[in-house]
Amino acid sequence: MNPESFKPQHFLWHFDGGVGTVTLNRPDRMNPLTFESYAEMRDMFRELVYVPEVKAIVVTGAAGNFSSGGDVHEIIGPLVEMDMPGLLKFTRMTGDLVKAMRNCPQPIIAAVDGICVGAGAIMSMASDLRIATPEAKTAFLFNRVGLAGCDMGACAILPRIIGQGRASELLFTGRTMGAEEGERWGFFNKLSTKADLMKDAQDMAARLASGPTFANGMTKNQLNMEWDMSLDTAIEAEAQAQAICMQTKDFERAYHAFVAKKKPVFEGD
Amino acid sequence: MNPESFKPQHFLWHFDGGVGTVTLNRPDRMNPLTFESYAEMRDMFRELVYVPEVKAIVVTGAAGNFSSGGDVHEIIGPLVEMDMPGLLKFTRMTGDLVKAMRNCPQPIIAAVDGICVGAGAIMSMASDLRIATPEAKTAFLFNRVGLAGCDMGACAILPRIIGQGRASELLFTGRTMGAEEGERWGFFNKLSTKADLMKDAQDMAARLASGPTFANGMTKNQLNMEWDMSLDTAIEAEAQAQAICMQTKDFERAYHAFVAKKKPVFEGD
Amino acid sequence: MNPESFKPQHFLWHFDGGVGTVTLNRPDRMNPLTFESYAEMRDMFRELVYVPEVKAIVVTGAAGNFSSGGDVHEIIGPLVEMDMPGLLKFTRMTGDLVKAMRNCPQPIIAAVDGICVGAGAIMSMASDLRIATPEAKTAFLFNRVGLAGCDMGACAILPRIIGQGRASELLFTGRTMGAEEGERWGFFNKLSTKADLMKDAQDMAARLASGPTFANGMTKNQLNMEWDMSLDTAIEAEAQAQAICMQTKDFERAYHAFVAKKKPVFEGD
Repeated sequence: MNPESFKPQHFLWHFDGGVGTVTLNRPDRMNPLTFESYAEMRDMFRELVYVPEVKAIVVTGAAGNFSSGGDVHEIIGPLVEMDMPGLLKFTRMTGDLVKAMRNCPQPIIAAVDGICVGAGAIMSMASDLRIATPEAKTAFLFNRVGLAGCDMGACAILPRIIGQGRASELLFTGRTMGAEEGERWGFFNKLSTKADLMKDAQDMAARLASGPTFANGMTKNQLNMEWDMSLDTAIEAEAQAQAICMQTKDFERAYHAFVAKKKPVFEGD
Repeated sequence: MNPESFKPQHFLWHFDGGVGTVTLNRPDRMNPLTFESYAEMRDMFRELVYVPEVKAIVVTGAAGNFSSGGDVHEIIGPLVEMDMPGLLKFTRMTGDLVKAMRNCPQPIIAAVDGICVGAGAIMSMASDLRIATPEAKTAFLFNRVGLAGCDMGACAILPRIIGQGRASELLFTGRTMGAEEGERWGFFNKLSTKADLMKDAQDMAARLASGPTFANGMTKNQLNMEWDMSLDTAIEAEAQAQAICMQTKDFERAYHAFVAKKKPVFEGD
Repeated sequence: MNPESFKPQHFLWHFDGGVGTVTLNRPDRMNPLTFESYAEMRDMFRELVYVPEVKAIVVTGAAGNFSSGGDVHEIIGPLVEMDMPGLLKFTRMTGDLVKAMRNCPQPIIAAVDGICVGAGAIMSMASDLRIATPEAKTAFLFNRVGLAGCDMGACAILPRIIGQGRASELLFTGRTMGAEEGERWGFFNKLSTKADLMKDAQDMAARLASGPTFANGMTKNQLNMEWDMSLDTAIEAEAQAQAICMQTKDFERAYHAFVAKKKPVFEGD
């Protein structure tokens, strides 16, 4: 994947200053996901492992909404008719999108406005950081369409972000989490305005992209890997991971900049 | 167990509209637990696995208090005299109550007013959702009776609900957590008034009971099972769990209701 | 180690009423850590396992700051020149300090004022409870010196205290967490004033030291051990741990004090 020339079929891609921006873009239906857009995003996040010039990702939706989730007509209708191998193929594909978002080294920032429901809520949850407008309405609404809250990792990931009690309420009821509530609970890192949302998300992404990106990738890796490690094992894993980072040139650059009383310029190696 | 005719000896049971309500009822001593009430509740929650017509549970206490926990005279006195096999038999029985509350598919809502301490605090913690009055006083007071905070799963469950630092304080000091503090920390999902507590809890239970209850049971199962899974394993586990739910009639009902622009009526199969 | 006569070389030690106070004391450089102070603290926390007369620990810094972390000249400079075996030896030593803080039975209270960054932030995170002044500025600033956020267990421990989303932001950006923010997020258990900080920390430590300290050590042990246990396994582990505590004299003392309507006096056995 060449980030300069990448032209996805099912979403928009913009690349500037090391930051790739993914925009779900079907505004007439509030940016639903389809079989094709799931697959294309999964493939893109998988490829990003090998594309270090992409240093941070912003995920957003067009025209005032994040995403309405799996399209009722294009996804839910076919699923109702499907046999078990077909269903499992689908749920594994959607799960693979979350795995790919977690397993790429680039930090992902979700910029959330308006409707953010179902698989859209999952994509914001699977991001590393989240910024929202006060108008953001986030709902893990699976049980309102007859399904379980355990979709694409929600029963594992959401409790780690907002706590087991609040996650249980959202997953059992499918109710909307408001933006202020989401900030208070730690789901959103920051609230912004409609006018400033993309600027704030891009500023955050630019800040991360100007950091030691090899080390940031290691941070993300460890946040994933230590999820179910014992405490002592996690500490040993970090001793190894940080020792690796101490052999990067970025660490040396930071030291020399400090001694020279300058601001370090990181290059990600 | 027939929920219509069930007549427990050591607590009250009421069943209406798919919702079973358990009331600890020894108001003169603020609803303590005894060897017998622990065992009878454990047995009831174990049986609920096989009683799908019970779709949600409310747990509460009589006359303005939730529970004073293990009775000092009827439980703590005998324990002081007991040998190790006897002690372990007791602590395993109380732990089995928590396991049974977690392992039944019905979501459990704790409606908490007044005193909620010791094993009472544990029972509210082991529920899925918690609603309280401003007068609720919750204390994991084990260390004030010379014991450890690690009682019936508290060192594992409480940190997942309110965070490791706040849980450490409550468990090391045994201090009371106020109701507003509990809401702010994510222990209580909602505060209500004394007048509205039971109505709010029953409304929440009725809402859950009218949902896709087979899928809700799967949500609860995954919230428990993914506790210590790796991230990738949890995502695969959810792919399987959700594929199972996609073969329920409730999923089909929701789709057809959506297409017909009606509200779905779920039946739990 | 004799807590009455212990005279560390690289930090201050004060022992009174069962409470040991560690003060990082190099105020001209805001109390940085050095190779020697890391090692000496690690050794002290390891020895505390065998010193039950030390019942609680307070960790703080001299002259209005907690700690500036690893010293740039004495630590970062040498690390830039070091080979991999040397680097891993260092990161394992710093990780061993966190392991030793978690594995000693005494609850540790961090009293945080002013600068609390890098390894200083880690030491506050690795404590059991945290009290801060409004002037506390806490930063896991590793990525600002070209390193990863996975330092000394931060990717495992910080998400459990403040949630995965907020921890991700602090670790990816290295930004400062303010004191009020830290209290709101559950990092700090309480805010105090500059005038009252040490009194509040000592009062909390004295309260813990007057409690059932054998049982408190078991609470701390289980908080560590159940980190990655399944729910059912954790409940069984607590049944065993609490049965052990039910054979202590402190449990008996509490029962007899209750029956006599007196306040129990615990002795830690």
